Amino acid sequence: MVFTLRYASTTLYFGVNALENAKEYISNHEKVVIATGKTSARVSGALADVEKILKGYGISYVIYDNISPNPWASQVENLAKTIWGEGADLVIAIGGGSPIDTAKMAAIIALSGGSVKDYVKNLRKPKRSVPLIAINLTHGTGTEIDRYAVVTLDDTLEKHGLSPKYPEISIDDPRYTLTLDKRQTMYVSFDAFYHVYESATSKVRSLFIESLAREATRIISEALPKVVNDLKNLDLREKLLYASMIAGIAIDSGSTHIIHAIEHALSGLQPKLAHGCGLALLGPRSAFYIHKAVPEYSAAILKILDPTIKPISEDAEKAQKAVEKFQQEVGFTEKLSDYGFSEKDINKIIEYVLTRLSYMHTNSPFPLTSEIIRDIVAHAL
Amino acid sequence: MVFTLRYASTTLYFGVNALENAKEYISNHEKVVIATGKTSARVSGALADVEKILKGYGISYVIYDNISPNPWASQVENLAKTIWGEGADLVIAIGGGSPIDTAKMAAIIALSGGSVKDYVKNLRKPKRSVPLIAINLTHGTGTEIDRYAVVTLDDTLEKHGLSPKYPEISIDDPRYTLTLDKRQTMYVSFDAFYHVYESATSKVRSLFIESLAREATRIISEALPKVVNDLKNLDLREKLLYASMIAGIAIDSGSTHIIHAIEHALSGLQPKLAHGCGLALLGPRSAFYIHKAVPEYSAAILKILDPTIKPISEDAEKAQKAVEKFQQEVGFTEKLSDYGFSEKDINKIIEYVLTRLSYMHTNSPFPLTSEIIRDIVAHAL
Repeated sequence: MVFTLRYASTTLYFGVNALENAKEYISNHEKVVIATGKTSARVSGALADVEKILKGYGISYVIYDNISPNPWASQVENLAKTIWGEGADLVIAIGGGSPIDTAKMAAIIALSGGSVKDYVKNLRKPKRSVPLIAINLTHGTGTEIDRYAVVTLDDTLEKHGLSPKYPEISIDDPRYTLTLDKRQTMYVSFDAFYHVYESATSKVRSLFIESLAREATRIISEALPKVVNDLKNLDLREKLLYASMIAGIAIDSGSTHIIHAIEHALSGLQPKLAHGCGLALLGPRSAFYIHKAVPEYSAAILKILDPTIKPISEDAEKAQKAVEKFQQEVGFTEKLSDYGFSEKDINKIIEYVLTRLSYMHTNSPFPLTSEIIRDIVAHAL
Repeated sequence: MVFTLRYASTTLYFGVNALENAKEYISNHEKVVIATGKTSARVSGALADVEKILKGYGISYVIYDNISPNPWASQVENLAKTIWGEGADLVIAIGGGSPIDTAKMAAIIALSGGSVKDYVKNLRKPKRSVPLIAINLTHGTGTEIDRYAVVTLDDTLEKHGLSPKYPEISIDDPRYTLTLDKRQTMYVSFDAFYHVYESATSKVRSLFIESLAREATRIISEALPKVVNDLKNLDLREKLLYASMIAGIAIDSGSTHIIHAIEHALSGLQPKLAHGCGLALLGPRSAFYIHKAVPEYSAAILKILDPTIKPISEDAEKAQKAVEKFQQEVGFTEKLSDYGFSEKDINKIIEYVLTRLSYMHTNSPFPLTSEIIRDIVAHAL
């Protein structure tokens, strides 16, 4: 059964065939740009569903499918140029985080002008934007329900987090996640888990974030161990998709901190490293430091993984072990050295996290030092 | 610490001194109508806080404090006339459910015209409205975060539920709830509990409603037994206020059903009966029927009150007992006969619920029959 969730300026339709609920909205538009990547929109069946609706109404559309993982500013600007050039009055983004993030920024630039850098440097404000429908294909990012976009600048290779806009309409249909393979399934669910664990332990935590974090953790810890051996189970996919969506609300209301910050350095240096994999490599040892700093908030979440964890700093090692065990039990066995990292990269990572990525850990519950980063990364090697 | 929640078109500020966050918004207006009742806005200190801000900015305002509990359509229309006549560009409602509900409808009528009846009969649509700030003084109704209003027609005495609008801004400051006495404290918390228990067992339940329901029930069942003996405890009040707020999101996303429907008949016939008291009188026996019909959904909530309750129809009596025990343990001992009701009123109640209030139980998980209503009401006598 489809349900509707109104959060901020997004109306989200959740459930099998949720796209049906957006038909009337789509029918009020004349020219659509579909923003996506090369593969998953086709494999998942989402692109075919969208094209069927557009053809049914006789709405003209173009497909822009040049969006890569970890999208570049130049891709955003090209998409913006396409939207503007076509005079499109609606953008439909289909994908994981990259197409949706790219489309959020491009929808702004198409009507507010400028380049990605103008917005990064706060030289320009997002004033107007083309309406956006986000069709989500993974159960990880939460970007379908938050206002964020992550874009990499072509010249400096710097990753930037921006807050361009919420999608007007979002679609979470679990059928579209059935084609994720085992690794992708783990990675995206780890992403959702760290969204809530970090949000619930950040300096800007709230009762609402804690509620969402408890629910998401409970669902992920129950469903993920089952789905890795049963990838086509629609009921489990629906639960994981729901958990990642509320985790998206949690980061939109709150903030990630040290794990996401260090991971951005890792996948910035090694683009082959999937974001969720990087998080899982750093997560257990990070949990040690987080639990030590804010045991009460950390325990509220981690006791769902291990009911014996107490809200005391002395249980920091137990916290680390609980996260490690949860990941190992679903089959996660990777190391940072599998991606070519070694001891000698640590200084580079520390420098990246403490300088260019410092904005990403301002909400950490404790000051992130080079010693702590060194220890966390060393544990992942 | 104040946190911000964006739900639908409402921006809600939650926490001690939350009103500070609305100052800038208020400062952009020129003429304000404050809509409230005779007592609680003054006793709680909320009215003084609002007046201080308005005076600080030199914004002119009038106080309309003629709103009674169970507000009448004529009160809505009078308030609308005042807003329109004053040319107000902002309404600030301060109160429990009645002032906020009245202001929601009046903010519509002030700019879209017509009478309450026009909207009840769907002769007119809410097209434009004056912006509304809702300052909530109880931890029960959830009206600060939902789109509903309940108004009684003066001529037919019929209570009607309408969906006029969301407040633009809402304030949930637990300090304003410290002056609720023991009975009010129980009643409003019962209201919040039944919002989630009914929403989570209704035909339009969802994963999101279940999450909110579990969290609200957990918090209420922990905090209410403590607060009744410690009425000025700000931390407990904050938790209960938070629970009632997310319960408001649950009813906005979903729907109440049989308990709220029968209660509206009771307090319609006997206005001295407080809404939350009426719900508590009907709740335990209603839980028997609800658990029997949808044991899985009912148990997901009630096992927070009694962990031994199983998701099987056979545990319906256990469900009834769990709700009864929860209410008794916080000190609820009333009966329907305390309010002058007797056996001979039952047929009138049945007729009311099945005819004029039939729209209130369309989302019941089972068909509400006269036999069931008779049994539920008889148990409350």
